[in-house]
Amino acid sequence: MELVMPISAKENLKKNMKAFSEKLKRFPGQLWQTVWRVGRDDPRRVVHALKVGLSLTLVSLLYLLEPLFKGIGQNAIWAVMTVVVVLEFTAGATLCKGLNRGLGTLLAGSLAFLTGYIAEKTGLVFRAVFIGAAVFVIGTATTYMRFFPYIKKNYDYGVLIFLLTFNLITVSSYRVSNVLKIAHERFYTIAMGCGVCLVMTLFIFPIWSGEDLHNSTVIKLEGLAKSIEACVNEYFNDVEKETTQDKSPEDPIYKGYKAVLDSKSQDETLALHASWEPRHSRHCRYPWQQYVKLGAVLRHFGYTVVALHGCLQSEIQTPQHCRVLFKDPCIRVTNELSKALMELANSIRNRRHCSPEILSDNLHEALQDLNNALKSQPRLFLGSNNNQATNMLAVAAAHANSSQKREKYNGVSLPSFKTDNSALLEWKSKRLNNEHSRSEAAERKVLRPQLSKIAITSLEFSEALPFAAFASLLVETVARGENDGDLWISGYTLLLSIMLTLPDSYDGTVRIISREITEPGQPNGIILSAVSKTWLPYPHFLVFDLLIYASSISA
Amino acid sequence: MELVMPISAKENLKKNMKAFSEKLKRFPGQLWQTVWRVGRDDPRRVVHALKVGLSLTLVSLLYLLEPLFKGIGQNAIWAVMTVVVVLEFTAGATLCKGLNRGLGTLLAGSLAFLTGYIAEKTGLVFRAVFIGAAVFVIGTATTYMRFFPYIKKNYDYGVLIFLLTFNLITVSSYRVSNVLKIAHERFYTIAMGCGVCLVMTLFIFPIWSGEDLHNSTVIKLEGLAKSIEACVNEYFNDVEKETTQDKSPEDPIYKGYKAVLDSKSQDETLALHASWEPRHSRHCRYPWQQYVKLGAVLRHFGYTVVALHGCLQSEIQTPQHCRVLFKDPCIRVTNELSKALMELANSIRNRRHCSPEILSDNLHEALQDLNNALKSQPRLFLGSNNNQATNMLAVAAAHANSSQKREKYNGVSLPSFKTDNSALLEWKSKRLNNEHSRSEAAERKVLRPQLSKIAITSLEFSEALPFAAFASLLVETVARGENDGDLWISGYTLLLSIMLTLPDSYDGTVRIISREITEPGQPNGIILSAVSKTWLPYPHFLVFDLLIYASSISA
Repeated sequence: MELVMPISAKENLKKNMKAFSEKLKRFPGQLWQTVWRVGRDDPRRVVHALKVGLSLTLVSLLYLLEPLFKGIGQNAIWAVMTVVVVLEFTAGATLCKGLNRGLGTLLAGSLAFLTGYIAEKTGLVFRAVFIGAAVFVIGTATTYMRFFPYIKKNYDYGVLIFLLTFNLITVSSYRVSNVLKIAHERFYTIAMGCGVCLVMTLFIFPIWSGEDLHNSTVIKLEGLAKSIEACVNEYFNDVEKETTQDKSPEDPIYKGYKAVLDSKSQDETLALHASWEPRHSRHCRYPWQQYVKLGAVLRHFGYTVVALHGCLQSEIQTPQHCRVLFKDPCIRVTNELSKALMELANSIRNRRHCSPEILSDNLHEALQDLNNALKSQPRLFLGSNNNQATNMLAVAAAHANSSQKREKYNGVSLPSFKTDNSALLEWKSKRLNNEHSRSEAAERKVLRPQLSKIAITSLEFSEALPFAAFASLLVETVARGENDGDLWISGYTLLLSIMLTLPDSYDGTVRIISREITEPGQPNGIILSAVSKTWLPYPHFLVFDLLIYASSISA
Repeated sequence: MELVMPISAKENLKKNMKAFSEKLKRFPGQLWQTVWRVGRDDPRRVVHALKVGLSLTLVSLLYLLEPLFKGIGQNAIWAVMTVVVVLEFTAGATLCKGLNRGLGTLLAGSLAFLTGYIAEKTGLVFRAVFIGAAVFVIGTATTYMRFFPYIKKNYDYGVLIFLLTFNLITVSSYRVSNVLKIAHERFYTIAMGCGVCLVMTLFIFPIWSGEDLHNSTVIKLEGLAKSIEACVNEYFNDVEKETTQDKSPEDPIYKGYKAVLDSKSQDETLALHASWEPRHSRHCRYPWQQYVKLGAVLRHFGYTVVALHGCLQSEIQTPQHCRVLFKDPCIRVTNELSKALMELANSIRNRRHCSPEILSDNLHEALQDLNNALKSQPRLFLGSNNNQATNMLAVAAAHANSSQKREKYNGVSLPSFKTDNSALLEWKSKRLNNEHSRSEAAERKVLRPQLSKIAITSLEFSEALPFAAFASLLVETVARGENDGDLWISGYTLLLSIMLTLPDSYDGTVRIISREITEPGQPNGIILSAVSKTWLPYPHFLVFDLLIYASSISA
C-alpha cells in the first residue's frame, strides 16, 4: 500500500502550473518533430495535402469568380463538399468512394422520386404519413443491410450516402415543389467536384493503392527473411547476452515480423482499393487477390517466426556445446531460407521472372543436410513399458547404422561431425542370445569396430528440449514453404500472375486459373494453368494437322 | 496447358442466360438466409436498425408537421443529416462521433468567422484572393494533420468535419451576408439531431462498446482454452486420423484461436469507443486499456497455439509409443491450463473475484510434473568433440540420479513410469580409471544395482524432435502465463481493476497504478498498487499516533 501525502492546495496548483508551462514550452518542438517525421516517413503525404488544398481552392473558384458563379449559382457549395469527402490518399480509395457516392446518390434519387410520385396524388396529411413511413422503412432496412458482411466490406459508404440522399430528397419534396430542378443543379456541381477529384487523383502525382500493396508485400517478405536470420544468429552466437528488453522496437527480430502480424485489414483494404485502379494492361485484371492470399500465408509464416523467437526467450536453454553441434546446418538452412525469401522479394519488386528451382532447390538440400545431421548425431534412450523386448543390441545396431551414415556423409562439409572418431568407449551387451535379436547378431559383429569409435556425451532430455523445439520450428518454417507448398507456390503464383499482366511480355489475352486440390485421397497442391491465344500464319487445316502430328509424336 | 474449345457464340449466350436465371431463382432464398443469419448472430442489430428508422422518422417530423416547421424552417433538413451520420451501432461510437462532429463544427465556425472578419474590411477582389488562400492553407494543413498518428486514431472524423464546415462557411460568406444567422439556425437543428441520437443511443435499448469488449475478451479466453485442449487431445488420441482439411471452419482448434489472431484493430476501436461511455461509477474510469493489454497478451499466446497446432500437421511425427510416455503429464498440464483460463474467463465474465492461487498453483504443480517426467525418462547421447573427457561413467551416474529421482517420484500417479523396473540390461564401462572420474567411482558402485534395472529403448533424435517441439511449446504456452507473468498478471490486473470500479465493492476513490519493471538488473515484473481513501472517526493526532505506533511495531 502506498500512502498519499497531504499537499496544500496552493503548492499543488503551483506544481501543476509549472508542469503545464514546461509542457507548453516543449510543445512547439514536439509538434515540429511530429510534422517532420510524418513527412519524412512518406513524402507522398505532403503531396497529397497540397493536392487537397489545390482542389479545394479550384472548386472554391466556382463560387468566388463572378462569371462562374452566375452560371452555377448557390449550388457551387456542393462541389466543395464533394471534394472534401471524396478525395482520398490513394487513387483507388478516391475512385471507390466516388463511385460509392455516385451510385448511392443515383439509386436514392430514383427511389425518392418514385416515393414522391406515389405520394403526390394523395392529400397533404396522407402524404406526410406516407413519407414518414417510407423514411422509417427505408431507414431500418438500409441500416440492417449495412451489417451484411459483403455490403459492409464493399459498399458501406455507398449505403450510407444512399440513406442520406434518400432522406434529404424525400423530406424536402414535401415542402419544395421543384425538387427535380434542385437535384438537377446539384448533380452538375457534384459532377464537377468529382471531376476535379478524378483529375487530381489520376493525373497529378497519382498515388496507387496497388503500388502500396506491392511494396508492402515485398517489405514483409524481406522483414521475415531478416527476422529469421537474426533469430538463428542470436540463438547460436549471443547466448550469454541477457535479453532484458524483449520486443523493444530496436530488436531486429521483432521489427522484422511486426509488420506481418496485424496486416490483415490493411491488406484487404489496399486490395479492395487497388481493384478499382486502372492499370496499364487492358485485358487482364492485376492479381490483387493473389497479394491478399500471399499476405495470409506470410502471416501464418510470421506466427511460426514468433514461436521461434519465443525459443530465444524461454528460461531453460540447451547448453552451448550441444547447440554448436548443429550450428552449421541450422545456419545453412536459415541462409538458404532467407536467400530464397529475398530472391522472391526481389523478383516481385522488379517484376522479373525467377525460376522456382532457385527458390527451393538449395533450400531443399540444406534442409536435407540438417535432417541428416539431426539423424546421425544424437540418440535418445527411452525407458518404456511397451518395449521391454528391445535390448542393447538394437541400440548398438542403430548406432552403427548412424555412424556408417555419418561416414558416407563426410563429403559434405559439416566440420563438427568429422572429429568424432576418437575411440573413448566400448559398449558391451550381455544379452546376445535374446530371441528377438538373432538376425541382428551377424550385423553387430561387423559393426563393432565402428561402434568402439563413438564419442558419447550425456544430456538430459529436458535440456535438449529447447533446442529440439528450435530445430523443429526451423524445419517447420521451411516446411511451410516446401511441403505444403504454401509460401513458395503462393509467391510464385503471384509472380507468374504479375509477369503475365505486364504489357511487354505478352500481347494477347492471358487467363490464369489456379485450382487448389484439397480433396481427400489426392495429393495436396495447386494446379496452375495459363491459357493464351496466339495467331498462326497458316490455314486452319494445316494447324490441325500440326496438332495431330505433334500429339502422335508425343503418344 | 489447357486448350480452350471453340464454342459458338449463340450456345455461349444461352448457357450464360441459363446460369443467370438459375442464379436469379436462388437469389431470394440466399438473401433471406443472409438476412436471417445476420439477425440471429446478433439480435441487437435488428434493434439498432429499428432505432435508426425511428430516429429518422422523429426528426423528419420537424419538417413534416406544420407547427414545428414554422418554428424551425428549411434548416430542419440538417437534423436529418445529423442523425444519419452520427447515430452508430454502439453508444460509445455515437458519442465519439457526435463529439468529434460538434467540436469540429465549433472550431471551424470560430476560425471561419475570424477569417471572414479579417476579409470583411478589404475590397472585393482582395477578399476573394484572401478566401482562396485561406482555403488552400487550411485545406493543406488539415489534410496533413490527419496523417499524425494521434489525430488519426482519435480525431480523424472531427478533423474532416472541421475542414468541411470551414470551407462551407468561408466560401458561403463571400456571397451571403447573414452567414451568422444561417449558422445560428443550423446549430439549433443540428443540436436537435444530436439530442435525438443521444436519447436513442443512451436510453432506448443501449448497446455498449464496453460490454462488447468485455464479452469478446471472455470469448477469446475460452476459445484459447478450448483450442489448447483440443490440440493436445488430438495429438495424443487421433494420430491415425488424416488431417486433410486443415483449418476448415469446423476444426475446433482453428475455431478457438481464429478470433484472437486478428483482433488488434477491433479491440482498439472498441476500447476507444468504450472510453466515451458513461459508466455506473462516478469516480473511476473503467479499465479499458487493461482490456487492450490483455488482448495483446492473448494474441501472443495465440501465436504459440498456432505453432502448437502446426506440430499436429508436420510430416515427421514421433511414434505413438513414445508419445504415450508423456501423455498423462501433458494432458494434466493442458487440463490445468485450460481450467485456469476458464476460471479467469468466468471471473471476468461475472466480475467476481478469484484468487491468483487458484489460477496458477495447480498449473505450476502440473508443470513441475511434466518437467520431472521429461527429466526422468529419456536420455540423449551426443557424440561431441568438445567433451572427449566425459565418459560412460558420467552417463551412468546421471542415469542413476534420474532413476533415483524417479523412485522418489512414484508417489505421484504417473502409471507409465512405474513399470520400468524389470532388469533387462547391464551397462559396463571399461575406463573406470579415467582421471576425471575418480570422485564418481564410489558413487557408481552404490548405484549399479539400480542401473541394471533400467529398461532402455532407442529412438532417433529426429523422430523425437517433433514431440520435443510439442512439449516445449506446451511448456512455453504455460510459461507465457507463468514466468513472464504476462497472461496471469494481465488477467488478474484486469480483474482487480474491474472489481475496484464496481460500485458495491468500494465507495471511495480508488486509484490503481501498475508499473512494469523492465530495467536491466532488476527482476522483471509488474508492481500493482491500489490507493484508497477512507474516513476514520478520530481526531487527526490520534490517527498519526496510530500510524507511528503501527510503524514502530513493524520496525
